[in-house]
Amino acid sequence: MTGKLYIVGVGPGHHDHMTFRAKEVIEESDTIVGYETYVNLVQDLIEGKTVYRYAMTQEVERAHQCIDLAKSGKIVSLVSSGDPGIYGMAGLIYETLAESNWNPKDGLQVEIVPGVSALNSCASIIGSPLMTDFAVVSMSDLLVPWEIIEKRVEAAAQGDFVIVIYNPASKKRIHQLQDTRKVLLKYRKSTTPVAIIKGAFRESETIVMTDLENLPNHSDKLGMISTVIIGNSSTYTYKDLMINPRGYKSKYNLEEQTNPDLKV
Amino acid sequence: MTGKLYIVGVGPGHHDHMTFRAKEVIEESDTIVGYETYVNLVQDLIEGKTVYRYAMTQEVERAHQCIDLAKSGKIVSLVSSGDPGIYGMAGLIYETLAESNWNPKDGLQVEIVPGVSALNSCASIIGSPLMTDFAVVSMSDLLVPWEIIEKRVEAAAQGDFVIVIYNPASKKRIHQLQDTRKVLLKYRKSTTPVAIIKGAFRESETIVMTDLENLPNHSDKLGMISTVIIGNSSTYTYKDLMINPRGYKSKYNLEEQTNPDLKV
Repeated sequence: MTGKLYIVGVGPGHHDHMTFRAKEVIEESDTIVGYETYVNLVQDLIEGKTVYRYAMTQEVERAHQCIDLAKSGKIVSLVSSGDPGIYGMAGLIYETLAESNWNPKDGLQVEIVPGVSALNSCASIIGSPLMTDFAVVSMSDLLVPWEIIEKRVEAAAQGDFVIVIYNPASKKRIHQLQDTRKVLLKYRKSTTPVAIIKGAFRESETIVMTDLENLPNHSDKLGMISTVIIGNSSTYTYKDLMINPRGYKSKYNLEEQTNPDLKV
Repeated sequence: MTGKLYIVGVGPGHHDHMTFRAKEVIEESDTIVGYETYVNLVQDLIEGKTVYRYAMTQEVERAHQCIDLAKSGKIVSLVSSGDPGIYGMAGLIYETLAESNWNPKDGLQVEIVPGVSALNSCASIIGSPLMTDFAVVSMSDLLVPWEIIEKRVEAAAQGDFVIVIYNPASKKRIHQLQDTRKVLLKYRKSTTPVAIIKGAFRESETIVMTDLENLPNHSDKLGMISTVIIGNSSTYTYKDLMINPRGYKSKYNLEEQTNPDLKV
């Protein structure tokens, strides 16, 4: 007997920003697995279900457990905040299945349920920073050597990408964002806008709008639920918003007449 | 009298992947504005409302119209597919408001409702390509000179980023992806996995898994509703999936024992 495995992103933490599909598969599931903090985000949806709560850094066990449960006939939702397809559990599940010669056509059914990730939610509350090309970089060096990450930051700076930083710091890991700032200052003005968003759409939400120069003054706002967005050469601020224009302003005219032919 | 302006992303097109907030604000609105194809995606939610449908390339008029309607007291949803914060209408709305000395604190209320963008939805149906750092690049040269875009592609290649390409081609614009491929082949193997996703989660959905070598054989799958995901040096394929490992495999062991202490 074979069950199903859903890898579900519940968005930034507030149910408003969860998708209908995410709620639907959680409700359909008899078994819920997830890092404790993520499971708590959907506590109201999982009464009466079998729930396995994991501590951080037990991802490999979590993947095996989910696959074993689904193979035994359970309908399993592995839940996480954000989107499990972005630095999430989707990869480890597929890696593990691939090593066991899984056949997607007639073996265990797996569905990734995409969600609103930190890049989507954080951008939405600080303005419009992602109107132009952007690079997404995780500062976590648990699984990737720092030299590789730093090389990516340099490349993103050279390409004038807006940069979205996941996992900017943890209690034990603070030098990465400082080093990133140094690299960026070789290419960008010290007045380049920077936003630090902590706990987007949660009750604890805090937003700091600063710039590359003053970023070191806000290290208390960095942590595992923080995201940092660093502007590129065309980013500007207006009031407390970080705005990227859609393209090169000279190419269109904001004063253009309203089209009289619009269809009602 | 002042109304409200919601800039709403409805996700990839299937209501399942819309957020609760997106549906809620559309229902609350008396006025719906959007590019015709996007408005059609939510046709069932907008019966009885005043609906303004625009043709493509009327974005500036659309922004002015929405702001004027909201200022006159209407509750307006400007709808789009995906996430309006990623290459969407959020930027033009804020740019236009900023030029009119808008004050977010006591002027028109604006809310960006984030959604599942093409990078989230397309990644979810082809495997786990975004487990590592990635760059997002639009090939549209309507508002950005091609030289800038090509420079970004080169930087993304140098940084070994997975690359997500929005707007890879249109009827009149086909050279960009060909040029991009040439740049990437300077840095990446010809066997680097490439996925072309057209109409993700729509009835017309088609997925092609190919590689840099064979990408030119699939130009019929490119268009304005296509997204292209190009792997980096650690991307591999398994069956029809594109997989990126979570990090450097040597750092963890997929055969690790299941933790006997997991909490039920």
